[in-house]
Amino acid sequence: MTVIHPLDQETALSLLKEGVWAGASTKAYGNMVGTFGGVVAATLLNAVVSDERRMGEPVSLTVNFCASVVVGDLTVQTKLQRAGKYTQHWSLELTQNDQICATASVVTGTRGDVFAMQSAGAPDVPKFEDCTPIPEYPVKWMGRYDMRFVEGQPEFASKQHDPLGSPYAAVWLRDNPDRTLDAVALASLADCFFPRLLHIRGTVVPFATVSMTTHFLATPEDLAEQADRPVLGVVDGDRFQGNFHNQRMQLWSESGKMLAVGTQVVWYKH
Amino acid sequence: MTVIHPLDQETALSLLKEGVWAGASTKAYGNMVGTFGGVVAATLLNAVVSDERRMGEPVSLTVNFCASVVVGDLTVQTKLQRAGKYTQHWSLELTQNDQICATASVVTGTRGDVFAMQSAGAPDVPKFEDCTPIPEYPVKWMGRYDMRFVEGQPEFASKQHDPLGSPYAAVWLRDNPDRTLDAVALASLADCFFPRLLHIRGTVVPFATVSMTTHFLATPEDLAEQADRPVLGVVDGDRFQGNFHNQRMQLWSESGKMLAVGTQVVWYKH
Repeated sequence: MTVIHPLDQETALSLLKEGVWAGASTKAYGNMVGTFGGVVAATLLNAVVSDERRMGEPVSLTVNFCASVVVGDLTVQTKLQRAGKYTQHWSLELTQNDQICATASVVTGTRGDVFAMQSAGAPDVPKFEDCTPIPEYPVKWMGRYDMRFVEGQPEFASKQHDPLGSPYAAVWLRDNPDRTLDAVALASLADCFFPRLLHIRGTVVPFATVSMTTHFLATPEDLAEQADRPVLGVVDGDRFQGNFHNQRMQLWSESGKMLAVGTQVVWYKH
Repeated sequence: MTVIHPLDQETALSLLKEGVWAGASTKAYGNMVGTFGGVVAATLLNAVVSDERRMGEPVSLTVNFCASVVVGDLTVQTKLQRAGKYTQHWSLELTQNDQICATASVVTGTRGDVFAMQSAGAPDVPKFEDCTPIPEYPVKWMGRYDMRFVEGQPEFASKQHDPLGSPYAAVWLRDNPDRTLDAVALASLADCFFPRLLHIRGTVVPFATVSMTTHFLATPEDLAEQADRPVLGVVDGDRFQGNFHNQRMQLWSESGKMLAVGTQVVWYKH
């Protein structure tokens, strides 16, 4: 009997016809309301990764979260907007009961052995094994990740922190159970950071990510070397204003390679 | 006689019917090949900003550059994918001769007077008036901006820098002629940075931005205070690998407010 990893189960899609896929959202990655945005992003990316028309590897993914994905059937529609010699551009829609829940765009690209350099360096942090797993939180998707904060573990409080906390955090992240790293897993890991607003205020107000962009920078060799080892997530936010704030993140391999980088904008109620 | 600013001229759209707009690309913002991506992004955003269905202000813009926009007529089609109490989600396509040149997504949002803080700070730099404008470059769009480098002005060379240069740069940017700042202008300013690859290598290889995301963080008060003054652009890149590299940017007001933040992924040939 083959055991299917929860991430693969949750992002699984059946081809109905070219560019139309059927999937289903379960409780496995449930969030406070609806399904964790990370697996929604991963499901959308999976529709392109699984497409026989695809050329090259994922380069960029933007997901716009329009409404909660809820437990039940979903449809992903993909449109190959334009294909060139080096890149393909895809537009996607995820619907439930004919209502748009998310839109996305994906760029795939042919990657060659050309000039390469990494100018950024990972922060110097304690090893995954030397860090403490977070306590159990009452949202299901968090149980699907082994999270170990190096810095900036959130402290929730009944009244707002004074002084305000820092939006910076560094945290080890690993699929639970372990899973070999690929672009689909990275797409979900990219959303594993709490809204920076919670870190600085300590209190929880209604919030939702409205748009998230991830750029994929890992080589096949990086992914092979990484295998099922944890990735280091580094996240920060810059400005919180008028019901929206930005946050930007990096995912690093254990050996210090930048695997993905991204940004998101988060709505908050008050 | 009213003089129309080149940016307003270049991004002007006529409503053909709901969600369908006619525009035209000229030589005013010409790039090495086709039209400068910044004004393509600004034109797309303008289709949402000009729509009578729009609620709220631009929060996020992602543009995927599929093919060059060339001198001539263009069509922008917008689809209001979903509208909630706080946000609207839009999908866009820009075509020329029925061929997709760019796709985009826009989130607009209602912004209120809620919790606000800016955790990031602008770098301490010399004033715009104390910096030297760049020499004239042989691409038309650069003449539409007064660019004054604080740090990281590119040095082009016939062979690759050894050691490689830094991808970091800080540069004052101002529409030329001056123009009052708004989201449409910010959308174009967000693309005014050269590919980081040119900065680190010094040599020019074929390149193209494939996807660009901008989050808008400015308050109406910031924009009013800023008026037609220059913005400070800060840009950096992290990893250059397999024909693609990321770069991330911030646009700051003269008084140190973060007006916009963004990321892009750039294709390079070798």
